[in-house]
Amino acid sequence: MEEVLKEVLKEIKPEEEEQKNLKKTSEKLVEKAKEVSSDFEISVEPKLVGSAARGTWLSGERDIDLFLMFPKDAPQEKLEKIGLEIGKKVSEGKAREQYAEHPYVNTNIDGFDVDIVPCYDIDDPTNLRSSVDRSPHHQEYIKGWLTPERAEQVLLLKKFLKGIGAYGAELKVHGFSGYLCELLITHFGPFQELIKSVSEWGPNKVINLESKRDQEELQDLFPNQPLIFVDPVDPGRNVAASVSKENYATFIRAAQDFMREPKKEFFFPNKPPTSSQELEDLIDSRGTEIFMISLDIPFDLVLDIVYPQLRKTKKTLIKRLEEADFRVLRSGIWAEENKALILLELKVPKLPTVKKHIGPPLGIDARPFIQKYINSEEALAGPFVNEDGRLVFELKRDRDEASQVLQKTLELRKGFGKHIEKSIDAEGYEIIEGKKVVAKAEEVNAEEFLGDYLSKCLPWYR
Amino acid sequence: MEEVLKEVLKEIKPEEEEQKNLKKTSEKLVEKAKEVSSDFEISVEPKLVGSAARGTWLSGERDIDLFLMFPKDAPQEKLEKIGLEIGKKVSEGKAREQYAEHPYVNTNIDGFDVDIVPCYDIDDPTNLRSSVDRSPHHQEYIKGWLTPERAEQVLLLKKFLKGIGAYGAELKVHGFSGYLCELLITHFGPFQELIKSVSEWGPNKVINLESKRDQEELQDLFPNQPLIFVDPVDPGRNVAASVSKENYATFIRAAQDFMREPKKEFFFPNKPPTSSQELEDLIDSRGTEIFMISLDIPFDLVLDIVYPQLRKTKKTLIKRLEEADFRVLRSGIWAEENKALILLELKVPKLPTVKKHIGPPLGIDARPFIQKYINSEEALAGPFVNEDGRLVFELKRDRDEASQVLQKTLELRKGFGKHIEKSIDAEGYEIIEGKKVVAKAEEVNAEEFLGDYLSKCLPWYR
Repeated sequence: MEEVLKEVLKEIKPEEEEQKNLKKTSEKLVEKAKEVSSDFEISVEPKLVGSAARGTWLSGERDIDLFLMFPKDAPQEKLEKIGLEIGKKVSEGKAREQYAEHPYVNTNIDGFDVDIVPCYDIDDPTNLRSSVDRSPHHQEYIKGWLTPERAEQVLLLKKFLKGIGAYGAELKVHGFSGYLCELLITHFGPFQELIKSVSEWGPNKVINLESKRDQEELQDLFPNQPLIFVDPVDPGRNVAASVSKENYATFIRAAQDFMREPKKEFFFPNKPPTSSQELEDLIDSRGTEIFMISLDIPFDLVLDIVYPQLRKTKKTLIKRLEEADFRVLRSGIWAEENKALILLELKVPKLPTVKKHIGPPLGIDARPFIQKYINSEEALAGPFVNEDGRLVFELKRDRDEASQVLQKTLELRKGFGKHIEKSIDAEGYEIIEGKKVVAKAEEVNAEEFLGDYLSKCLPWYR
Repeated sequence: MEEVLKEVLKEIKPEEEEQKNLKKTSEKLVEKAKEVSSDFEISVEPKLVGSAARGTWLSGERDIDLFLMFPKDAPQEKLEKIGLEIGKKVSEGKAREQYAEHPYVNTNIDGFDVDIVPCYDIDDPTNLRSSVDRSPHHQEYIKGWLTPERAEQVLLLKKFLKGIGAYGAELKVHGFSGYLCELLITHFGPFQELIKSVSEWGPNKVINLESKRDQEELQDLFPNQPLIFVDPVDPGRNVAASVSKENYATFIRAAQDFMREPKKEFFFPNKPPTSSQELEDLIDSRGTEIFMISLDIPFDLVLDIVYPQLRKTKKTLIKRLEEADFRVLRSGIWAEENKALILLELKVPKLPTVKKHIGPPLGIDARPFIQKYINSEEALAGPFVNEDGRLVFELKRDRDEASQVLQKTLELRKGFGKHIEKSIDAEGYEIIEGKKVVAKAEEVNAEEFLGDYLSKCLPWYR
């Protein structure tokens, strides 16, 4: 295991050159921000946070988080206005305005992807004005623990989680955040020790550094969360709130398998198949009916907004299909820039004309039920009494093809995400069926998504 | 209503000529039986029972039940042997030996279908040696109540129940016996009064003439029976034990509808469609996948034995289909002489190649599960973790066509009725699919069964 980890570390740890570049750009950014800030009447203190600031970034990652700390009594309005202004000035005309809890600026400096985020300088992190105000406190907390040795172990953990597909708190992944990785190493590290411990975790795990509250209390406080890691900076928060059951279980299974057979594939997994031929063969081999819904989404929408809405939309589509008696085997979503895809895999694409319509049991007047259907065009058989003594009509199915149900649902677009609904209004949608989904995936560069979906497999078994 | 009942009665009440013929033949039979019996050392008393004996038989019915009453201490062996001998002699060489609880003789005399059944002459009907010993007691009980006016009302009730398809305690029908009809008229009659009462019955009904036990006690004694009518001759028996929920509910719905609109169609319903064209059109309109399994059964098997075994066989077939993930919409069975049919109507005839195979949850060692499938030919995708944190493989389905499942199940013939199993051993089976079932139904004269199945409808709505 040592050997594997050493090799991996060599590949993932930023080299001196890379570290210098980051340092140079970071310092330049802080200088610039200080300079710009001095033009405003409110005192604003720029602060580097995140993995770049703590030396826990993986080689090749080029993200810098620069926070602009405002006095805690500054009006929200001023913070937003001045924050954006400073951000734009620091960006030298390349600013993209973005919006999470409040507006911030994203830009590109010296090839780094830089977020410039205004926040409040709060003494007590249990009493925040906005969730971003917590980041500087995390910064301080981790800084106090993180030796260079520990930082290396964090790198291993992050890369491991990336490799198994469970890294990232964003709503696309529902995985482990960088801060959570740092805390895990701090608490269970080094990497080997952590993995050993994780391999023994059960269906849920509670970690509380302060241990003032017991497990049960915490499970009540954070219900339905497989992993609870109480934030040492804010005991009212579960750092692992973003971790889905799926990613939690994946981490444990990966840890178990890694303990048995440590290999580089956990960190550097093989890619899924992506050639047209491979994808078409996979579709053939499954013998299912695949539908892909292709949507255009606004360019300025961040993926953390797109993904939950896509998920909601997918859920609604599945619900309508199942109400119409179709069975969905599996499904998936994908989004990038201004394109989004929803995949739905059905057992069968067409149902029989006839469907059962159960009427009242004994004790309830059957006249309205019988009169409604007895002479209707839809009635194929009935009324008759079934084995339970209930009246039944057999009626013609409204829509017997899944594509009709999908089209109708997309036309109505009720129960979709707000932005998805709007973008369908403006740009429409496309339903692609069967092997044609391969060409569509290639068109929007989603071959890896489709290949991953069709050959779905834990990455280290690929 | 009066008018309708009068008209119906005219058609169903045996005319004088018919009554004379029955009387003549009955008396002849009793005489003959007495004469033959005197040759044996045991004293045997012939007795007419059933509807023919009590004048509650419908015009056109030609059934006579002649019971041979043996002393209650006669050995079972003698009863069987002598009973058959007498029966055969009375039959004048046209006897068919049959078997229910014990052997009896069926024959045809003067165009009447005659059952000659040996039984014991028991004083106390709560202490029988065999269930047929009850019949003479029923005879006595009903005789005491039945005026000619009441007999007419019984005829109306029987014909009504025949018309709605709920008459007959035999295991083909699971309906109302003749004796139960007589008791219902005795207790609730005349017909009009009974129908009014029935139209108000709820999901279950308890009738106890003696009223020594309360409703709850009786429901515990006869669980899961929608209608409980305690036998006045044997309080440990529910006369309505044969009545299924379906027929119970059908009777009540018919009564409700008849109260609203009395018409002859309740007694003389229209026939279901039976022409090839109509049957084929019905199959088309349903858009389902129909399978018919055709079987040869031994000639000497009574339908009361065949039907439960067919039902069991059908149930097993449905179970196997559903285990293989096929959904059965509806099904039916039919038997006559030496032919039997099982109809199965499926939503779809073919499933996708891929099926989900869920593995262990967290906390259970996954190695055996993964090792079993990871390199197997059947694995199409996996292992992966699903939303519940469980491991999943997607495997190739063993049999993706319903016909394969049916064939395999019929070849194994496990969980079939004993005689069905034997007859398949000896005679084989045939699986007919789609519109070809029409030709098969015509071949065995089961068009009415098929038409009734395909256009299934309460008869008075036909």
